[in-house]
Amino acid sequence: MAEGHLTYEDSGVDYDRIDPLKVLAQQAARATGANLERAGARTGVREVAASRGESAYVVDIGDAYLASITECLGTKALVADAMREVPAVSGVPGAPRRTWYDHIAQDTIATAVNDLVTVGARPLSIHAYWAAGSSDWFDDTERMNDLVDGWKAACDVLGVAWGGGETPCLTGVVEEGAIDLAASCVGIIRPKSRLTLGEDLAAGDAIVLLESSGIHANGLTLARKLSERLPEGYATVMPGGRKYGEALLDPTVLYPPVTEAAFEAGIGLRYIANITGHGWRKIMRHPGRFTYHISEVPPVPEVLQFMVDETRQTAEEAYGSLNMGAGFALFVRPEDGEAAVACAEAQGVRAWIAGVVEDGPRQVVIEPPGITLSGESLALRD
Amino acid sequence: MAEGHLTYEDSGVDYDRIDPLKVLAQQAARATGANLERAGARTGVREVAASRGESAYVVDIGDAYLASITECLGTKALVADAMREVPAVSGVPGAPRRTWYDHIAQDTIATAVNDLVTVGARPLSIHAYWAAGSSDWFDDTERMNDLVDGWKAACDVLGVAWGGGETPCLTGVVEEGAIDLAASCVGIIRPKSRLTLGEDLAAGDAIVLLESSGIHANGLTLARKLSERLPEGYATVMPGGRKYGEALLDPTVLYPPVTEAAFEAGIGLRYIANITGHGWRKIMRHPGRFTYHISEVPPVPEVLQFMVDETRQTAEEAYGSLNMGAGFALFVRPEDGEAAVACAEAQGVRAWIAGVVEDGPRQVVIEPPGITLSGESLALRD
Repeated sequence: MAEGHLTYEDSGVDYDRIDPLKVLAQQAARATGANLERAGARTGVREVAASRGESAYVVDIGDAYLASITECLGTKALVADAMREVPAVSGVPGAPRRTWYDHIAQDTIATAVNDLVTVGARPLSIHAYWAAGSSDWFDDTERMNDLVDGWKAACDVLGVAWGGGETPCLTGVVEEGAIDLAASCVGIIRPKSRLTLGEDLAAGDAIVLLESSGIHANGLTLARKLSERLPEGYATVMPGGRKYGEALLDPTVLYPPVTEAAFEAGIGLRYIANITGHGWRKIMRHPGRFTYHISEVPPVPEVLQFMVDETRQTAEEAYGSLNMGAGFALFVRPEDGEAAVACAEAQGVRAWIAGVVEDGPRQVVIEPPGITLSGESLALRD
Repeated sequence: MAEGHLTYEDSGVDYDRIDPLKVLAQQAARATGANLERAGARTGVREVAASRGESAYVVDIGDAYLASITECLGTKALVADAMREVPAVSGVPGAPRRTWYDHIAQDTIATAVNDLVTVGARPLSIHAYWAAGSSDWFDDTERMNDLVDGWKAACDVLGVAWGGGETPCLTGVVEEGAIDLAASCVGIIRPKSRLTLGEDLAAGDAIVLLESSGIHANGLTLARKLSERLPEGYATVMPGGRKYGEALLDPTVLYPPVTEAAFEAGIGLRYIANITGHGWRKIMRHPGRFTYHISEVPPVPEVLQFMVDETRQTAEEAYGSLNMGAGFALFVRPEDGEAAVACAEAQGVRAWIAGVVEDGPRQVVIEPPGITLSGESLALRD
């Protein structure tokens, strides 16, 4: 192992140790689907069992489906907390500082809505979950304003209603000075034909990758670990001139305007995947026996390339844990590839027809770096 | 101030300090309602603005309303963590110990569903939010099993689907060894006539109070503070023979079966209030100018009476911060009082026609102890 090599597992996140609980919980959750069935005749409601294992849970209410989700930001707010001590403009020591919580707000909302829309839902309302370690957290007017402004701005971009939220003070549960941020989102799938669970995915379908803005909200534990090794930490200036911490805080792309535009344009979306934890392994999120052959790789955001270089990651490690420039994947009929790209770009999101779905073992083959991510490497749907 | 006197504010929860953020967030949230209006003509969706300030957010989707909510357990899990070191059976030193996380699971779900049903919704699906301070938390098989079993059992009682959840490991955000528990819930209001926002509440309506099982999930910071003053802490045996900590962990009553039964029985529910933080001040949650005259007070659970006695609280303080035996309030047409009580009792929940709504200043007058809780004392709807 090369000197300086740092993997996702080294950084303290151990997915294997969380899995037993997840499997136990998933089995119990699955069994509760029958509760809706039992009441179904009277209430006209039943679960869509095929949504189990997908990124959002779907219920059939008759003339429409409902989708719902709760997602956690993770530890990205700790980067914002650290960067608040660093002048906002790279190379200008006297430049004003900022809280970055407007960006953090968008990141939190993005974790929820980008998952929700993968089943074909239109997001309707969002609830905020902001749990602080002490009442002090809410005394900081500048940070509060940024968090609220960023939250509202993201809702406005999405066209959703901020329905409410919970702002508990959890001394003894949340660390002093920290905040646990999460978002829950409810969406509607109407007409019901918008439901996207991947039944129609087929060999020959085009894989359209949508650009990411940077690290988004996955890989932050590794990013934080790396900052400890850098002589100037988050203030380290990358080759392009921006500070490492500043670039980490570029807000996550909100993809729902792209999926909405694609549905309205009548594009045949066969499957949709949000590329989050496990990086490009999420491209093979669909349970079918398909090989995803990628021949065009989007440009890698500088902050991710910097992380890969500084942690001496192999291409397999990098593409298997980070988004590497692609934050979202649309799987479309071959003839819809160009139209899907045009839809994304009309919403200001760069996109590429990056590859094709093929019959074959479940894996992602990435041609240009010449690597293969195997479907056996992780239980991706858990 | 009497020696030994301990109030809710002394215990470290300072609602006033959280309020500025809440008001700021509420104003911003309110402004996003227009996002749904703008898209309304095309999507057939609009917000029900009157639900702002109520316990769940309501959206009109055409032939039905959707209600949604996210709620946090608070710090009650810390009591379970401490009680795990104490034998489960009072007075039996060699008795087996238990994790209590099955009860904690029900408490967490109750915080969400008991709020959700106040607007007339039938709960459909629940998402779990279990954020641990380290991966270790998920290694404890006994505790994991209890949490999962309790969560599933509560879903089964409610007839809802456990749709999924989030189980992040948030080292640096959540305290080592601790877990931040929350639940989000989606419900449907169909027929639309079930929508219960209080427009029809009127003088003469009966106030039906439903029993609590104990402290539920509010007042735990005070309860934890008190345990530090007791010579044997949570293991202190109360006059009736049960341990203080054991009684604190009696799971919160799930009230949705009562509201469902009441709606199905055609009972005219004019308003519904979940009695949580601020205790009986929640009885005047409705924004109207009404006096709530209580002439019959339910029996006080021993654990609450013990807390009140040990902390030397006045009746005003006790009824103004704890549920004091009444965890939920139904406001019904005068002629429906008896039927509402019968509905609750058929679901195994004791209930009383405890008082009447009167014209007058916004206040709760509790006759037997002879106290008045004033509507000016807190911004209850924030």
